[in-house]
Amino acid sequence: MPSYTAPTKDLQFVLHDLLQISTSDVPGYSDLESDFTTAILDEAAKLGQDVMAPLNASGDVEGCRLENGVVYTPKGFKQAFDQIREGGWNGLDLPEEFGGQNLPYVMGSAVGEIFVSANMALNMYQGLTHGAISAILAHGSEAQKATYLPKMVAMDWTGTMNLTEPHCGTDLGLMRTKAEPQADGSYKVTGQKIFISAGDHDMAENVIHLVLAKAPGGGEGTKGISLFIVPKFMVSEDGSLGARNGVSVGSIEEKMGIHANATCVMNYDGATGYLIGDLHKGMRAMFTMMNEARIGVGLQGYAQAVVAYENARIYAQDRLQGRDVTGAKNPDGPADPLIVHPDIRRMLMDQKSFVEGARAFTLWGASLIDRAHRMQDKDADGLISLLTPVIKGFLTDKGFDMCVQAQQVYGGHGYIEEWGMSQFARDARIAMIYEGANGIQALDLVGRKLAQDGGKHVMAFFEMVKTFIKENEGDARLEGFLVPLKSASKDLQAAGMYFMQHGMKSPNDALSGSSDFMHLFGHVCLGLVWARMAKAAYAALDGGASDRDFYEAKIATGRYYMARQLPATALHLARIQTGAETVMALDAAQF
Amino acid sequence: MPSYTAPTKDLQFVLHDLLQISTSDVPGYSDLESDFTTAILDEAAKLGQDVMAPLNASGDVEGCRLENGVVYTPKGFKQAFDQIREGGWNGLDLPEEFGGQNLPYVMGSAVGEIFVSANMALNMYQGLTHGAISAILAHGSEAQKATYLPKMVAMDWTGTMNLTEPHCGTDLGLMRTKAEPQADGSYKVTGQKIFISAGDHDMAENVIHLVLAKAPGGGEGTKGISLFIVPKFMVSEDGSLGARNGVSVGSIEEKMGIHANATCVMNYDGATGYLIGDLHKGMRAMFTMMNEARIGVGLQGYAQAVVAYENARIYAQDRLQGRDVTGAKNPDGPADPLIVHPDIRRMLMDQKSFVEGARAFTLWGASLIDRAHRMQDKDADGLISLLTPVIKGFLTDKGFDMCVQAQQVYGGHGYIEEWGMSQFARDARIAMIYEGANGIQALDLVGRKLAQDGGKHVMAFFEMVKTFIKENEGDARLEGFLVPLKSASKDLQAAGMYFMQHGMKSPNDALSGSSDFMHLFGHVCLGLVWARMAKAAYAALDGGASDRDFYEAKIATGRYYMARQLPATALHLARIQTGAETVMALDAAQF
Repeated sequence: MPSYTAPTKDLQFVLHDLLQISTSDVPGYSDLESDFTTAILDEAAKLGQDVMAPLNASGDVEGCRLENGVVYTPKGFKQAFDQIREGGWNGLDLPEEFGGQNLPYVMGSAVGEIFVSANMALNMYQGLTHGAISAILAHGSEAQKATYLPKMVAMDWTGTMNLTEPHCGTDLGLMRTKAEPQADGSYKVTGQKIFISAGDHDMAENVIHLVLAKAPGGGEGTKGISLFIVPKFMVSEDGSLGARNGVSVGSIEEKMGIHANATCVMNYDGATGYLIGDLHKGMRAMFTMMNEARIGVGLQGYAQAVVAYENARIYAQDRLQGRDVTGAKNPDGPADPLIVHPDIRRMLMDQKSFVEGARAFTLWGASLIDRAHRMQDKDADGLISLLTPVIKGFLTDKGFDMCVQAQQVYGGHGYIEEWGMSQFARDARIAMIYEGANGIQALDLVGRKLAQDGGKHVMAFFEMVKTFIKENEGDARLEGFLVPLKSASKDLQAAGMYFMQHGMKSPNDALSGSSDFMHLFGHVCLGLVWARMAKAAYAALDGGASDRDFYEAKIATGRYYMARQLPATALHLARIQTGAETVMALDAAQF
Repeated sequence: MPSYTAPTKDLQFVLHDLLQISTSDVPGYSDLESDFTTAILDEAAKLGQDVMAPLNASGDVEGCRLENGVVYTPKGFKQAFDQIREGGWNGLDLPEEFGGQNLPYVMGSAVGEIFVSANMALNMYQGLTHGAISAILAHGSEAQKATYLPKMVAMDWTGTMNLTEPHCGTDLGLMRTKAEPQADGSYKVTGQKIFISAGDHDMAENVIHLVLAKAPGGGEGTKGISLFIVPKFMVSEDGSLGARNGVSVGSIEEKMGIHANATCVMNYDGATGYLIGDLHKGMRAMFTMMNEARIGVGLQGYAQAVVAYENARIYAQDRLQGRDVTGAKNPDGPADPLIVHPDIRRMLMDQKSFVEGARAFTLWGASLIDRAHRMQDKDADGLISLLTPVIKGFLTDKGFDMCVQAQQVYGGHGYIEEWGMSQFARDARIAMIYEGANGIQALDLVGRKLAQDGGKHVMAFFEMVKTFIKENEGDARLEGFLVPLKSASKDLQAAGMYFMQHGMKSPNDALSGSSDFMHLFGHVCLGLVWARMAKAAYAALDGGASDRDFYEAKIATGRYYMARQLPATALHLARIQTGAETVMALDAAQF
């Protein structure tokens, strides 16, 4: 069975050495002293390692099943979910008034990485609930909050998001699900939704579906869409559960991965729903869930790579095969461990430098969310809005690639399900697709986020990189970080310039380069966090840190990223600058 | 269910417009007139489309099962295999004296692409048999050939390759399987082999295992290895089948894909085996199978991308979602087809330009094998020896990537098994691993093939590229091909130069760049074949070809590859030139 050991030391490094959270001015951060965050992460690690991870492979094999309208999760999931619930983990970063602990989002993300690495499919039941809570918090009435939030924060009730229909994925304007107003102010919701993650299960008393549907009078396309709360069981005024609502599971999808998460076809047959937020403003409310969910999905992408890398590393250190070409490293054994071979190293360094960079990038992003929410910092809000598609798209594309590479380290055993490496790749694959396929992330980035607020946020990002480089140019030890970062950032600016010059007269010139731009941006972000981590590691070494090995490895890993990964920015720029010409040359029928 | 339509037109283009086989001086090629190859490809297409492809998804779901020592293939496989057998497809390119049709290898490869795209798992039973036949042809005694080949060419008996053991994958020197000489000249083979594709099944009367084992007196490591024929059922002198031999299936592996191919653990318990080739020279004999098999695996990599691309294209043309940003293309419909969107185009063009380039590259490689075998052309032999790891490694890495990308075009449906896109990716994944994981291909390329015969073959390759560019520099229409090809080829030469300068004093500097070099080389090969195809397409247009649309699309697709894919060579070179420093910086324990 694959191994999982939570990287608490590295999470601590990011929280304290890099982000220095406990001295930050964000309200609530001053409580996050190192001892306190260590205690939280250690508890999360225990749950992840001892309870969730051992069910990951068995959950994949068993999957969910639908019997007589009831969805059953794999063996052991109910008990594990009880333990997550009893630990209050879902409410970690939710308001105290509804039963949460009100810790910053950055802590929720750090803990989230552990749970996702341990068991992505199981953690999704909680993740979807968290997203639904965010939407109710942002858009629900006081009565709705009082009715649903305490139960959902406690995870006695879980939540879902219902957007997709068979003919309508990305293009929500095509939606057919209808909501008819009733005399009592409620609605009757009718239609079919597909791909509903955690759509139903046997681990909670009730499921609260957030459903997009068209109510009369809203007009064509996405304009007519509203958001509704549709509980699985009706909720009485005293909070007790009543009759079953008109919503049922049509089937469970057979998927490539995340088998232990019930991806449901949901049928709404005149189900009672309650409008949440303003009528015909459902898209706005949905985006509250979506933005948080997208960062969560980016986290899934790299968190699968984290556990895949851990196992590839262990295999490479243990498996004896071949000899070091520069001289035997294990002369008394029949062969040397795989890790002596440069091409195995290359793969491990790709993975290590990615996952550590991605962790820092994501937690930095999470700290921007805290700044935006807790301080109403508009600049932080704009920046994280810009970076959200990069976190989602870049980290899931690369996270999957790294899972595939970790599988490759295992040779033939990587292809055998028993060894578990296939599951990491299969599970990670979905993160590139859901919450807006990565092409949509790239479109959001190039078509919307770049120009948002007059391009202010991307300019601020460039300024931040420039300032960091300028402030540290005197430090010769950082040269191997600053020089490539400068070059990569120039590539990003040149790409932005290309879009500005061409995008207005020929939008296809910009859109043809959108995915490359998202990757280019992602590399610059990882380059930036690696340069900052190197600086933090040198500071720790200068300060006499006892664990010199950790900090030296950190710097060496960063150097690898800067030398071997960051130069990809030039390729992305070259592609972008070829515009739409070759991309759009063929007629649709010529394919 | 996914679609499959054999690309016979494009195969014909490669055989006749590009390779101009019927006017070639290779013995047997003059028979390959266009009408004749069309007839063969059309027959293969019928079998692939109507018989093999319809069993691909059901075979994936059902898989193989082992019951009371008997391996059962999925429903319909036996009948389909009978049809392949009755059509004589296995013997297409095998000697007439053993029942084959003696057509060139290039035709076997063209047909092979069709069968692999249609049903990779089913075709493997035949592919492994073909490899085993090659080894017996090359190394078997006349008596062995007479005993085994007629039955194997007819596929009444199938073949396997037995190399791997639980503790011994790439490093065959660790092998434990023993062969003890018997008084009658036979051997008793004892040991366990794993990952044996097509190891056993219910579709043939007998299975002829080719097994590597250590016979006494050969010395340590790979030196002591010999190759043995171990039949499942003993073969009497009159060719009739006798008692069951001491070989049995221990279990069938649960794998990520190719479920319909029985990947067996084979137990040899004093099984009777017959030495094939020279004692203690088994590695050499095995490489006869391996080299052919590696080209076949490269073909698998791109053939899965062929069928994945076909389905992605159809989905993108049919699925209505969103509007063309430059103006509606389907104004009367609720939305435009996906294919209007530049990022969808980008993905389709990536796939199309790869699969067509890979097809040309592989069939060109196959024509080199014909030249080497049928004309004893040492230069062709040296060149294909150089290119074999590139065909295997580059085409399987990229082929898998393209399957993943084709899956991405489907959005959420790509993740649902019912739509079939997941299977293409899962099946393609194995091609990066077996017959030598791609890291081993890169090692073979950089560590052995580059320097083979004093570097003569790689110099000849450079010369070929240079000559092609020089000969065509006057043609302005080819500028968009020649300029990028020249630049990419320079990158390849610079990388080779780096290895020459550094490899001797620091082998790790070369080995750290081996995978990048393999990809760099692959891109140059595809750039070269694309430039040649563009030239051939212009020639056809100049000659008044009626199907202008086909040739114009060919040129436009090539332009995409040159503009968007070939620039990757600079990134690979940049990585290579950083050497081993950052790759090998960490101690093994610091990971």
